[in-house]
Amino acid sequence: MSAKIILEMEIIHLKLKISGTHLLTFVSIMQLNSIGYTVFFEETDFNHLNHFLKENSFSSIFVLCDKNTENHCLPLFLKGNKALKSAKVFSIPAGEKHKTLDTALSCWNFLLNNNADKTSLLICLGGGVVCDLGGFIASTFKRGINFINVPTTLLAMADASVGGKNGVDFNGYKNLIGTITQPQGVFICEDFLKTLPPRQIKNGFAEIVKAALIGDKKLWKKFLSLSKLPDSSLFRRTSCYPYEKNIKTKHETKLTDFIFDSVSVKNKIVLKDPTEKNIRKILNFGHTAGHAIEAYYLDKKNSLLHGEAIVMGMCVELCLGKILTLTSPKIAMDAFLFFKKHFALQPFSEKEIEIFIELMQHDKKNKNGELGFALIEDVAKPLINISASAQDVKEAFALYNNLLA
Amino acid sequence: MSAKIILEMEIIHLKLKISGTHLLTFVSIMQLNSIGYTVFFEETDFNHLNHFLKENSFSSIFVLCDKNTENHCLPLFLKGNKALKSAKVFSIPAGEKHKTLDTALSCWNFLLNNNADKTSLLICLGGGVVCDLGGFIASTFKRGINFINVPTTLLAMADASVGGKNGVDFNGYKNLIGTITQPQGVFICEDFLKTLPPRQIKNGFAEIVKAALIGDKKLWKKFLSLSKLPDSSLFRRTSCYPYEKNIKTKHETKLTDFIFDSVSVKNKIVLKDPTEKNIRKILNFGHTAGHAIEAYYLDKKNSLLHGEAIVMGMCVELCLGKILTLTSPKIAMDAFLFFKKHFALQPFSEKEIEIFIELMQHDKKNKNGELGFALIEDVAKPLINISASAQDVKEAFALYNNLLA
Repeated sequence: MSAKIILEMEIIHLKLKISGTHLLTFVSIMQLNSIGYTVFFEETDFNHLNHFLKENSFSSIFVLCDKNTENHCLPLFLKGNKALKSAKVFSIPAGEKHKTLDTALSCWNFLLNNNADKTSLLICLGGGVVCDLGGFIASTFKRGINFINVPTTLLAMADASVGGKNGVDFNGYKNLIGTITQPQGVFICEDFLKTLPPRQIKNGFAEIVKAALIGDKKLWKKFLSLSKLPDSSLFRRTSCYPYEKNIKTKHETKLTDFIFDSVSVKNKIVLKDPTEKNIRKILNFGHTAGHAIEAYYLDKKNSLLHGEAIVMGMCVELCLGKILTLTSPKIAMDAFLFFKKHFALQPFSEKEIEIFIELMQHDKKNKNGELGFALIEDVAKPLINISASAQDVKEAFALYNNLLA
Repeated sequence: MSAKIILEMEIIHLKLKISGTHLLTFVSIMQLNSIGYTVFFEETDFNHLNHFLKENSFSSIFVLCDKNTENHCLPLFLKGNKALKSAKVFSIPAGEKHKTLDTALSCWNFLLNNNADKTSLLICLGGGVVCDLGGFIASTFKRGINFINVPTTLLAMADASVGGKNGVDFNGYKNLIGTITQPQGVFICEDFLKTLPPRQIKNGFAEIVKAALIGDKKLWKKFLSLSKLPDSSLFRRTSCYPYEKNIKTKHETKLTDFIFDSVSVKNKIVLKDPTEKNIRKILNFGHTAGHAIEAYYLDKKNSLLHGEAIVMGMCVELCLGKILTLTSPKIAMDAFLFFKKHFALQPFSEKEIEIFIELMQHDKKNKNGELGFALIEDVAKPLINISASAQDVKEAFALYNNLLA
């Protein structure tokens, strides 16, 4: 894969010839160029992916999916990509609790038994779990084979599929074993969201709101102006097939716009610091507390989705920022109320908080034994390498509980 | 770790003041600069390592060793490094058969239970197995912590500790799961070789001879001139402590010279192509056949050391090159006879050859289903991306058997 020039977005003017008449219109071809690969925003025909597969002659192609995406997304995906007819599909059970070394092991075996080599391609078709797991499997099999992400959830489209972080959970700790390895491409097709339950759409918005808070004032304002969060009824197709409907030259509020904005924020940061030596740490806002909450609920009946835990994590860390007098009280309150309005927040018992803090001791952001956080001073004013004591964190949880009451 | 300017070797003139008189002498400070890190050739005092530990304030230090290096090398190592007093030692059973995911798992657990974080350091003190395994563990724990290699065998000094390749064996295949991740430093102290049995010294020479054949005519000539391979009685100390013995301004034939030459060849290649997209593949000369032979004997009573298998692998691949009319018949014969003279070669049965070929089907160098090889045209004239059929390889083994008879 050759390195690509970094562009933010390409607007290409196309002349469409329909029924013998020239129809001049603007079709926005949205793409973001990342570290040696491109994030494409696709139509159902998977034009970019088809081109990518033609351009690269892979010796064999594998599709990793889970039982959900096998049922709901794979048929649509294979229909759009004739080159994938002979692809071998490996399906894993759905859910975060299967993001384990054991699952990786079964997939390594599948690749081995099907003679995958260094010129093979693994396509990760699924949500965050499939993308995280698939990236880890591909980055370690024969010391690294090609892989691309085709995210099927809003969370994976807006966050997990981009940036190269992968991994598996280990002994109850999130992503404890993994690498940072960039995919050869990310292909985002919003049509998959049609199959997604509303809870999963909300789950994805957690990371999009995070992107707004750490890096996009305009997007944050847009969020504040919403009476309710968008759902999957907002599709890009209305404007992407202009000849099917009235030609629209102005963008509406569409899910793809939110995804594009979120990926843009993340991509800018990742390009500056691919291996998370410094500035990339701001993407972890809400994640020190959030990962602990998520890990705790992993084996519970009422387990949380990643975004649901991260929303509560951001609320706790807004409280922490306020206590440490690092976060402006206004934004701490505005954001807390925004989350309270649009997401389900729950209080935590003292015992639970103790366990969360114990779990945070192993967070990857910790340094020299202190708990490490990424916070915000204000919108688009992130703070990294913030250390806090267990006592500070306890107080933050107490304030969080109070604000919920 | 800051990137370093690439230098081949530094000769530093030092003024030593001993017993009140100035004594001008040349002390060669040997080091090779690799991809963002340095390969240091150390004295027993581990001066460079001590400096490195002072320069970087690691939150905690871990030593990975095996039962052999724990007994024979760790005491010397800890004596030379006072900063390591509080280091936590994790010892694994010795031998290639423990280079597994299970061993990696136990070490990840050890790091987790001892609160290793991203600013911790893992020191891999051992041979190829410990360096390969330790590199994999460090490169995947919390998506990558710091690690350095302190090789204790000639093989690891001359080859395995440098270049960033790591991994574990999987389902009988060598290094099937791994990454390419550079260490933060390599510290080679020849004193460890004193504890090494002669078989292990010979094992190391396999890779040094390979380095000569693929990239160093002068070194190859030196090998041809030897009546027998050097052993551990040749130590650098004689010239490195000039005030202890007579001052020597000329180098003798010392083990360190062989190590230095071998690492130089490898380092030049790795610097050109860190991720083995092209030229780095020449380091795999002898390894397609050799790894299959090694893997086959892994669970046998008369298991082979890596170098022993690679020597036979090189012999088979010299035969293959001759059959494919790619390798000059003269060098094929010269090298074969050299190996026959200095190493233990054994013939293989038809049944064994079938199994080797089956194992080669999963070699990482394969492409599009064909067996992939790195061969030589002549000394320092390597060939990469050579495909051969199973029939060609069978004939090569037959020629190998004939030449042994």
